[in-house]
Parts: sequence; structure tokens; C-alpha cells
Amino acid sequence: MVEAISWTKDTLNIIDQTKLPADYVRIDLQTVDDVYDAIKQLKVRGAPAIGITAAYGLYVAMRNEAVETRDMFFAAMQKHIDYLSEARPTAVNLVWALHLLRDQLNATDLSSAEELEARLLELAIELHEDDAERCRAIGRYGREVIDKHASVLTHCNTGALATGGIGTALGVIYQAHEDDKEIQVFANETRPVLQGARLTAWELTQAKIPVNLVCDSMSASLMQHGKVDVIIVGADRIAADGSVANKIGTYSVAVLAKFHNVPFYVAAPFSTFDMSIHEGINIPIEVRGNDEIRKIAGRSIAPGDVDCWNPAFDITPPDLITGIITEKGIVYPPYRENIEQFAKK
Amino acid sequence: MVEAISWTKDTLNIIDQTKLPADYVRIDLQTVDDVYDAIKQLKVRGAPAIGITAAYGLYVAMRNEAVETRDMFFAAMQKHIDYLSEARPTAVNLVWALHLLRDQLNATDLSSAEELEARLLELAIELHEDDAERCRAIGRYGREVIDKHASVLTHCNTGALATGGIGTALGVIYQAHEDDKEIQVFANETRPVLQGARLTAWELTQAKIPVNLVCDSMSASLMQHGKVDVIIVGADRIAADGSVANKIGTYSVAVLAKFHNVPFYVAAPFSTFDMSIHEGINIPIEVRGNDEIRKIAGRSIAPGDVDCWNPAFDITPPDLITGIITEKGIVYPPYRENIEQFAKK
Repeated sequence: MVEAISWTKDTLNIIDQTKLPADYVRIDLQTVDDVYDAIKQLKVRGAPAIGITAAYGLYVAMRNEAVETRDMFFAAMQKHIDYLSEARPTAVNLVWALHLLRDQLNATDLSSAEELEARLLELAIELHEDDAERCRAIGRYGREVIDKHASVLTHCNTGALATGGIGTALGVIYQAHEDDKEIQVFANETRPVLQGARLTAWELTQAKIPVNLVCDSMSASLMQHGKVDVIIVGADRIAADGSVANKIGTYSVAVLAKFHNVPFYVAAPFSTFDMSIHEGINIPIEVRGNDEIRKIAGRSIAPGDVDCWNPAFDITPPDLITGIITEKGIVYPPYRENIEQFAKK
Repeated sequence: MVEAISWTKDTLNIIDQTKLPADYVRIDLQTVDDVYDAIKQLKVRGAPAIGITAAYGLYVAMRNEAVETRDMFFAAMQKHIDYLSEARPTAVNLVWALHLLRDQLNATDLSSAEELEARLLELAIELHEDDAERCRAIGRYGREVIDKHASVLTHCNTGALATGGIGTALGVIYQAHEDDKEIQVFANETRPVLQGARLTAWELTQAKIPVNLVCDSMSASLMQHGKVDVIIVGADRIAADGSVANKIGTYSVAVLAKFHNVPFYVAAPFSTFDMSIHEGINIPIEVRGNDEIRKIAGRSIAPGDVDCWNPAFDITPPDLITGIITEKGIVYPPYRENIEQFAKK
């Protein structure tokens, strides 16, 4: 399996995902500006992957700083945190990771910049390893939903390219493949940004897992023909009632799954649950620009002045979801009660 | 409204649809080779539009022939029929139109090539006018399904660009607009070939009918938000039980409509019914090549070697269809009985 982010020979190295699937290019990020640009230009994407890259980036930034005292260290670090946070203002995970590291460092009584810098790298590596372990745990718990011979449909990209490990929904698929199950994946291309075509299809091809790319409008026909045994998707945010906000098109697949009696699972770490949001209807949905639909790979595919409706996410209500696969186990309905129980584990 | 095909000043003139939506270019087709190329290269597409273009094309071909007797005329014409039929081997309507004209000419007792040639043009114009009238009749019968203020979702292109008139599903929309109803159209982009983005959005923009372009995966979310009052799509073939074969993605929209209690109509002329096919399951489905999904506007959007599943059509079963709008009226369930009744009208 590919590794979106690696820390080797004291260097932060990532796949430039903007070059995929045509070219597999790895780049070193040597300065905080390199890291900022990589996040801003989507060379690295996927909430967990962005957080991990930013964490290493903060260390790269501080390594290049000539500071001595604890106060000087924290002052300089805050400047870099503010800077990196701006790379993608809507990426909650980016700010979360940077603040986590700052708070963890703040909780130490290390007094020299040298010690703080060394600890910062340890914390970044820890964040990366924790994410990888969470993915593995999701994969292990997800085992039971994949039969020995199974055809699995997924939407968007939730794999090694989006996380610090094997991924969430794709993590379950990688685990099934490792368990020598005979699986066949159908990857929705995921318009408008085509993460399924560009990233999921590429990742699975690299891992030699049989994959068929389909247009999003073909899921229904696949299910009508009995070609889908189980569906697994990721989540951007999950409300306390079990409603799932995820890439636009997820809700469509969930309704079609219900109609065709195909089990529909969501795979996501517990950090995705937002218990402050009581019902799915309250999850805010980002509506994006017209050109994301009107142009593909820089080329116009529609009249330049036509209006579009382009929500980035949709909300799948809990009654369409068979189960939510987390690093603590699979949460089944009734969701409100069971999510609360699992959260305490 | 735009006219895909026109016969003016003794010349066959079409919109070059391969240039849309970037450029609106009309071209004259002066020879049978021009006509063949226009059909083959998809400069003209849509079953009725192809048939009409071929009919005029046959006249253009014969006009350039130096023949005198009836026998010479029919011999030369058969050669052109065979040639034009090859332009798009799977387009049933193409062969149907050419054979219709031949049979109609055959039924006359005209003896000179000159008379036959003149009659051939009349028959081509008649075919064109009949199609336009059928579209208008579908539009009139469809009136009752569109409220005074209505938001209408459609899939693929079924309008002026696809027919010799105002279209089928889009014909109903044009009629509603002409009736001064306040309508808002949502056009599915219709992957993989993007007829919705390239053609429907363009056509409706030209006619100043409010349109929003959406990705196919967004229909569900639109319906969830109560943004769709009625759905109208076209049909490629309808079986005796009321099952509808239409552009891939139609079945998906039909299932989503059922789930959200949105009325789902099909608009199609009676020539679309194939009474020799008793059940939808028996309609043959063309599966197309991988590159239609892997490339958009000539650019790769997926790994070059990834497998795809690319059926051109899907089958919507009759229990998902609210009604079928034809030039003879709206056919409602039970379909098998009612289709038979209407066919006799």
C-alpha cells in the first residue's frame, strides 16, 4: 500500500496528489513554506493526512528557527501555527492537530528550545502513529461485514492517500484483502472533484486489489443487477443521532442501498463524531463554486454562464445506515444511545 | 428555441453539436459524405434527429446522382442507404428512417428519377414535420403534470438538439415555459458523455429558461431538500410492460423519486414502444468502452489501465413510473393493458 506521508531520514516526504493518477511523484517538504504550499495546493488532502502533515510541518518550521528559551520557542511556534492554519481555512483537522501539539508541549515543563523541539517531533510522530493504529483498528472491526467473496462499493477516497494509515472505508477493504478474501471493489468516480477516479482507483490498482471504476449514476444499476454485496463509505462529521455528513453523493448511495436491501456501512474514527450537533439537519454544508462542476481538468464541459448547485457534502440520516465502524467497534442502532455508550469506552 | 436541423434554401444545415457548448456553429451538409461524417462524428445526435438528418441526406445523395429510370434510381438509392446506415450501426432510428423513405417511394408509381427525387424531398420534409408535431403533442399532453410554479429535474438531453422539434421531456418543459409557468429546471450533467452539461444546459440557457446544472450524484440531495416537484426524462425504448430503457442514471433517479415521493414521468413518442419485448429485463443493453469514463474532453481523469463498467443505458421498471407522456396522451398504470389500448388509437 502507498504511504501518503512519510518521515524518513529526518525529512518530511509526501506524494504530490495533484499529479495523480498520471504521475506518482514524491516530494520533500524542507521548509514551513513548502508545507503551507503543499496543503494549500492540495498536494496533500484528506482530513487526517492534512493534520499529520501540518504537525510535521510545525516541527520543520521550528527546526529552522534560531530560538533558545521556552518563551521564545512558544512565541515563534504560535506564529507558524497561525500561518499554517491559513493554508486551508475550512479544514477543521488542520487547526485541531496544530493546537493539540501546542497544548501537549505546553503541558510539559521542558525549558530549553532544544528539548521542546525534540519533543515536538516525538508528538508529531505519535499523532501519525495514532492515526495509523486507528485505521488498523477500524479495519479489524470492519472484518465481520465483508464476506469471503464480496463485491464492495465505495464513494470518494478514504484510503492511504487520505490518512496516516490504511484509511477508514478503504482500510476495511485493505484488511479484507490482507485476510485473503476475494474482493471486488466498485469505486464511484465521485463528481465533481473525482476523488474516486483519481485517487481510489489509483490506490487500489497499486495495491493489486481488483477495482472497477463507475460513474456515480451507475450505482443503482449495479445494485439492480445484484453486483454489490456491501457498501462502505467514510464520514466527514457524524452527529449525535448517527446522521452522517460525507462527500456529496453518499446520501444517494444510501437511499439506493435501502431500496435494494444492500447493507450500508460508514467507517470513521471516533474523532469524527460531533456530540455538540444533536441532529443531522444541523450539520452545516459547504456550498462550493460553479466552476467545480462546469470545468473538468481545466476544460469547460458546460456553458460558462450556467448556474450550478454544488454542495460539497450531503447528510445521510441514521435509518439508512446499517452500522458505523469505528476504532472502538461497530456501532449499531439505536444510534443516539449506542454512540453515547461507545464514546465513554 | 434552437433548431438542430433545418432545410432552407434547398440546403441541409445542422448545428455542429461537437462544438457545443463553447461554440455555436452551423454547417451545411452538401454531399452524402458530409452527412455520413456528421452522423458518425456525432455532430448530430439523438435518435429522431439522426433519422431526419439521414432522410435529408438521402435526398442530397440522390440529387447528386445522374440517374434517369426508376430502376436506376432505386439501385443508386440502396447503395446510399447501405452507406448511411453504417454511420452509426446501433442507431435503430437511422435505419428505420431510411427504410421508411425507401418503402414509401416504392409504394408510388412514379417512373422517372426526377419525379422520385422530388418526392423523396417531400417525404424527408414530412418526416421532419411529423417529428416536430409529435414533440408538440407530447408537450401539450404533458402540460397537466407541471404546476404553475414548478421545479423540474431532467436527465440527459431530450430537447431541440435531439429531435426535429421541441423535444420530448424538454418539449414538456418548453411548453410549460410558453404557457408562462414559472419553472426552474435542474439538469443532471449525465456522465459519462455529459449530454446534460453540454447540451441541455446550453439549450435551456438559449431559450432563457432558468436552469441549474448539477452532478448526477446530487439528485438525491435535491429531493431530500424538497427542491424537486416533478421529474421528466426521455426513453430510448419502452417494453410492452412499461419498462423504460433510457440513458444510464435514469433508473437511479427513478428509485430516488420513489423514496422521496416525487412524481416520475417518461416522455416519448409511440415509436419508442417495442411491443415485441414483453418485459424490461429482455431489453438489450449496450456496454461501452472504458475510455468514455476514464477520459473527459480528451484528458485522463483516472489510471489509464483501470477497468470500468460502462453500460450506456439502464432499465426502469414500470412500478417506479408515474406516467408515460406520448403524442396520444399520458399512459398510466396498469401499463400492459393501457399501452395496448393506446397503441390502437
